[in-house]
Amino acid sequence: MSTRVLLVECEDRPGLVHGITGVLFRRGLNIVGNQEFVDAGTARFYMRTEFDGVVEAEPLLNELRAVLPAAADVRLSDLAPKRIVVFASKEHHCLADLLVRHEFGQLNARLLAVVSNHESLAPLVAKFNLPFHHLGHGDGGRESHEAGLQRILEGYQPEFLVLAKYMRILSPGFVGQFPSRIINIHHSFLPAFVGAKPYHQAFQRGVKVIGATAHFVTDHLDEGPIIVQQVIPVDHTHTPRDLAQAGHDVEQIVLARALKLVFEDRVFLCGNRTVIFD
Amino acid sequence: MSTRVLLVECEDRPGLVHGITGVLFRRGLNIVGNQEFVDAGTARFYMRTEFDGVVEAEPLLNELRAVLPAAADVRLSDLAPKRIVVFASKEHHCLADLLVRHEFGQLNARLLAVVSNHESLAPLVAKFNLPFHHLGHGDGGRESHEAGLQRILEGYQPEFLVLAKYMRILSPGFVGQFPSRIINIHHSFLPAFVGAKPYHQAFQRGVKVIGATAHFVTDHLDEGPIIVQQVIPVDHTHTPRDLAQAGHDVEQIVLARALKLVFEDRVFLCGNRTVIFD
Amino acid sequence: MSTRVLLVECEDRPGLVHGITGVLFRRGLNIVGNQEFVDAGTARFYMRTEFDGVVEAEPLLNELRAVLPAAADVRLSDLAPKRIVVFASKEHHCLADLLVRHEFGQLNARLLAVVSNHESLAPLVAKFNLPFHHLGHGDGGRESHEAGLQRILEGYQPEFLVLAKYMRILSPGFVGQFPSRIINIHHSFLPAFVGAKPYHQAFQRGVKVIGATAHFVTDHLDEGPIIVQQVIPVDHTHTPRDLAQAGHDVEQIVLARALKLVFEDRVFLCGNRTVIFD
Amino acid sequence: MSTRVLLVECEDRPGLVHGITGVLFRRGLNIVGNQEFVDAGTARFYMRTEFDGVVEAEPLLNELRAVLPAAADVRLSDLAPKRIVVFASKEHHCLADLLVRHEFGQLNARLLAVVSNHESLAPLVAKFNLPFHHLGHGDGGRESHEAGLQRILEGYQPEFLVLAKYMRILSPGFVGQFPSRIINIHHSFLPAFVGAKPYHQAFQRGVKVIGATAHFVTDHLDEGPIIVQQVIPVDHTHTPRDLAQAGHDVEQIVLARALKLVFEDRVFLCGNRTVIFD
Repeated sequence: MSTRVLLVECEDRPGLVHGITGVLFRRGLNIVGNQEFVDAGTARFYMRTEFDGVVEAEPLLNELRAVLPAAADVRLSDLAPKRIVVFASKEHHCLADLLVRHEFGQLNARLLAVVSNHESLAPLVAKFNLPFHHLGHGDGGRESHEAGLQRILEGYQPEFLVLAKYMRILSPGFVGQFPSRIINIHHSFLPAFVGAKPYHQAFQRGVKVIGATAHFVTDHLDEGPIIVQQVIPVDHTHTPRDLAQAGHDVEQIVLARALKLVFEDRVFLCGNRTVIFD
Repeated sequence: MSTRVLLVECEDRPGLVHGITGVLFRRGLNIVGNQEFVDAGTARFYMRTEFDGVVEAEPLLNELRAVLPAAADVRLSDLAPKRIVVFASKEHHCLADLLVRHEFGQLNARLLAVVSNHESLAPLVAKFNLPFHHLGHGDGGRESHEAGLQRILEGYQPEFLVLAKYMRILSPGFVGQFPSRIINIHHSFLPAFVGAKPYHQAFQRGVKVIGATAHFVTDHLDEGPIIVQQVIPVDHTHTPRDLAQAGHDVEQIVLARALKLVFEDRVFLCGNRTVIFD
Repeated sequence: MSTRVLLVECEDRPGLVHGITGVLFRRGLNIVGNQEFVDAGTARFYMRTEFDGVVEAEPLLNELRAVLPAAADVRLSDLAPKRIVVFASKEHHCLADLLVRHEFGQLNARLLAVVSNHESLAPLVAKFNLPFHHLGHGDGGRESHEAGLQRILEGYQPEFLVLAKYMRILSPGFVGQFPSRIINIHHSFLPAFVGAKPYHQAFQRGVKVIGATAHFVTDHLDEGPIIVQQVIPVDHTHTPRDLAQAGHDVEQIVLARALKLVFEDRVFLCGNRTVIFD
Repeated sequence: MSTRVLLVECEDRPGLVHGITGVLFRRGLNIVGNQEFVDAGTARFYMRTEFDGVVEAEPLLNELRAVLPAAADVRLSDLAPKRIVVFASKEHHCLADLLVRHEFGQLNARLLAVVSNHESLAPLVAKFNLPFHHLGHGDGGRESHEAGLQRILEGYQPEFLVLAKYMRILSPGFVGQFPSRIINIHHSFLPAFVGAKPYHQAFQRGVKVIGATAHFVTDHLDEGPIIVQQVIPVDHTHTPRDLAQAGHDVEQIVLARALKLVFEDRVFLCGNRTVIFD
């Protein structure tokens, strides 16, 4: 007997909580945590319920569908570690943080491999005995590069791709194959400073706070649904390089926090916004 | 038709959410927000449910009691402004903040009067056309002083007393007459720096962060259940006076935040801890 | 004998600190605080020195100019309260905060009058016995409106204008008459969400942090040099209205903090950035 | 030619900055950063000056001593990486963070070895090809244990010892051999929750914020001068185990930040407080 998580998203109507909890109650399943949210603008209902007890998935889901609107999205998760592949470039800090958390079983994920457009992080990955795939540039443009990525990913069948400071833009075609399954860390407090060199932009603008944003990747660069954001204060003594260094710590914390939420099935999408039950 | 809040606290057992939401559903009441928590250590169940719809209180409560454990605490709130009296001494910032919020209808309370052991804040209170009661010292000790407070409060019958930098200790006998109904702002991050002159203590200890704590007052000084805490960074250039000035802003924010939570019926007690549904 | 502040800005060259402190030392003036900064990009030198001692301004400044580059900007401040006029519209929270701080001598400014394009805050200002000037719309467009503002300001000769949630855009012509002397509070973490309705924009974008920015007003809307920024966390449960309410506290703190820095002569301009000695 | 740092601590008197900068100016050394502080309570003067230029240490120091009070403490640092040994127990997160920063040259230290009273972190240290010394318990008490530590340290001659969640108390005798050279991370916002199990204490007290404190180790447990403190918000849903997990991230950031400050010669002691030029 172990903890499972029920995830429900549907149009709102009276009696949903009563109906859903009734199904669980009649089957003798013990609710240990329960969170609901109704988005007023869209009238969508979201619910995440942790329960203990032995149950077969399909009969339970069928019984739940019977008390829910026709187009309801109902899922059951056993909170098993997610299968992930991490993309990186030259900066080590986010990748190293994920490798350490993975090594000590704190990521709730099975890190299958690291892919990079540079070779410099190969020795770091080797320390943790994980596969490292180098896929350089200059080999026929983005199309060819992404075909190479595809071939690598086919061998792993990951549930999620994590862009841990991966400094290359993925095409809509590539992104479209992993809907809501690519998570990126952007080194600014989005929507401030989209695009390249956000720390240089922040320096030019003279901001007194910098931040980092973890978000799902969509077709539109830096515009996907935001999962976690956090900031730190800076001042006039910070050069762009100082800003980047100061930002590294917040970047890795924000990415790790976002992955924890996603991998524990705590994040729903609501249009371009996220509903997060933490 | 207006929003009402159902508040339930009882021992935990399976089916509580299903039972409670069933009562509301059958009466056609529409749940617009719902939060539950089970404290693992004490196996206590807490629930706060906002709903829309017309209903008589007593029949509803009786029906709810029928689906709850015998000793359940069930209450219905209409979120009406709470009746409060504010105690202050010489410092104006917390009191002024409450007066402004009250003036503009943002306190969810009816501020009936201000009581002070000093006269200096009388002109401030007069600006807002509220009664100010000065009850000085030297008139026979604490017993006599508190008897005077009692006489003043009898005229107002407040639901809550707010100690807005009231620098005099109330006796257990006095406090016992307002169980979980006196809210204090303490100018430190409790339990650091209990007692007098916390900013001087903070300076001596050389801390790099100072804070404020809003808590319910109990018999034991500075040990009551904590409602809100917040901090700000400081450094070696701060004298005790600088620390106090820097702390004022966080004090008034913490107190206002705690009052908002309490006055919106979002705070439950769980032993010496608080369960807060915000 | 009281504390004075020496403010120096010039091109950088070796020996500046030695030269400046030498002038003060030879005159027997006691330095109680000293801060310098050299901006690497522009090679500009900034220095703020607090000292005790009796001295005539002009001879001291002349002696200092002799040890500084030709185009140096040298000023002496006696930290006297600045003369200010506050502009507001309908929202009370920033204005009320300034009125309270002014009433209790904590603003380091003499608040001469409040100007508003609405009448609703007149009663608040009246409580503090300060002049309130209502200058409504519909009376001939912006030119006529700003001519009216000018007439009011001529009577007060303020050193600084404070826009405390003043929701009307001032023309470059008007702004140009008060270079680096108009301070605005913008209800977002600039440069995110420039322009109107930043809280609605923040809601649409689904951010997890909102903020406020105090900045000098320049010809370019929301693009002036930033003085103070601060943020607070939010989540999916916040409606645009909730975001606005949550933002009010941070707005008034950020504005008050910026004014304290400016009025204590702690803020230098460095292009479109600020150098702040706090 | 490289950057050097001049560190001065002495009793305060007029003309110190002028005198010190004069010595540097006459030798053609270019000041690139300069910070001073006078502690009012003790009348002690602190100064940290970064300068560029070629100079022999002893003649410069002698010339500086000539313009300073007799008992002045004057040092010259070349900012070379400090020699350090890290002590750990079972928890990996702070140690792993230091190993990664060291591997990528971001610690400004040469990590010579790791010492632990448990064997469990040996594989982690091995990944980074650094010596790991296991010194278990039960071998004759603290005296014998510390004699073992001493033998290990003799081989490395470290300048600083870093206690990265080392869960064993060091005797005053041991500590006394490394005055102001042992840095500890304590998993609470000191002085709240001194001693063992601070997260359990925090849970019992029901705090709404938890923190971490990096401090120099003195004879008195958890009472040494504080270098860095930082906090994160928590709520009633956090069990003691959740608090510990949430605290890990802040612990490693606080420790890394404190080490950066100390290793860059930015931290002075002022009684039991620290003066930090960052």
